[in-house]
Amino acid sequence: MRTRDKILQTALALFNESGEAGASLAQIAAEIDISEGNLWYHFRTKRELIAALFEELEQAIEHSQSHPPADPGNIVSYSDYPRHCFRTLWAFRFLYRARFDMVKERELAERRLAVTARVHHHIERLLREMVRNKLLDATPSEISELAATNFIITRYWLDYLQERYGLVQISEADLQSGVKQISALYRPYLSTIARGQIAEAALPGRKAARR
Amino acid sequence: MRTRDKILQTALALFNESGEAGASLAQIAAEIDISEGNLWYHFRTKRELIAALFEELEQAIEHSQSHPPADPGNIVSYSDYPRHCFRTLWAFRFLYRARFDMVKERELAERRLAVTARVHHHIERLLREMVRNKLLDATPSEISELAATNFIITRYWLDYLQERYGLVQISEADLQSGVKQISALYRPYLSTIARGQIAEAALPGRKAARR
Repeated sequence: MRTRDKILQTALALFNESGEAGASLAQIAAEIDISEGNLWYHFRTKRELIAALFEELEQAIEHSQSHPPADPGNIVSYSDYPRHCFRTLWAFRFLYRARFDMVKERELAERRLAVTARVHHHIERLLREMVRNKLLDATPSEISELAATNFIITRYWLDYLQERYGLVQISEADLQSGVKQISALYRPYLSTIARGQIAEAALPGRKAARR
Repeated sequence: MRTRDKILQTALALFNESGEAGASLAQIAAEIDISEGNLWYHFRTKRELIAALFEELEQAIEHSQSHPPADPGNIVSYSDYPRHCFRTLWAFRFLYRARFDMVKERELAERRLAVTARVHHHIERLLREMVRNKLLDATPSEISELAATNFIITRYWLDYLQERYGLVQISEADLQSGVKQISALYRPYLSTIARGQIAEAALPGRKAARR
């Protein structure tokens, strides 16, 4: 692995564990056994390092949005996106906990708002696609409401598990429960077609085939 | 105002503004123009001060749960509770942002979990009451799902506004939009009685009378 990538990976792990204030550049250098000078060659300040990690977050979000649902005509396909989101949120959780000051850290604060807006719009886009594919029966104003609640569940599900159950590590079951929580939101709006697809996906044979 | 209360109020304002790491005991003493010795007489450590603020949070939650809906037979009454919650969350926002370590700060971490559980249970209780009063038509498993999503919206609504719009101060309109977001969640489950009550409350004359 290139030194730069090793620095980023280690910094991300340390920041996730103890917050960005919890690890200095010197500690990061020590952790991967390089000199501080070597680390400084790649990142002059902690801010630079955090900005580079932020770019990785942006790329992860870009990537998860570039894949349309495998089968846009099947409601079950739409649960891939929240699952992706949960993984990204967990992988970069220190960035989601950080509060970037609009005055002192304007650039990161604005990029943070842009990330939120991008995920929000993608959820709305997916919802409109579900309506177009006759999976969901919702008016434009219901779509806005559902999108906001969907966003909130997606964004805060892992925080919620931590606050409610003291969760310290996430499992597949935690991601699955989040997907289930989002699905429950849509239940009253599902078309007969979508209900049939969900019932079919829940059959034991199908479930095994999906793994 | 008693010195102890003045210390608590000032500490809360400073911690809310810049996080608990952002203000020292010395700065708090300076802010209210008392000697550090005087402050130490009331609180020996920052931890003690934070524990006292935590107790105030617990009392605020206790207080908001001790008032049943003004008219349990009218769905409109049930929006008082989320409104209370939003105010409490905003007033003590630094405590909601803090992460108490289960090992190093076990007591506060456990009290934090207890606060979450208490609010969660209260929401479930209100939902069951709505069903009992024939305002909501939901099965026990739908009640659990709705309660969790209701909790998540209540808990994270203000965070969401900050992350989405860069909100720095809350207004009545922000609380109102949160109540609306929660109400939308229940719409598919409302009984005819409840729908009638909502329509009536929305009439211009009624609205004016409620202010």
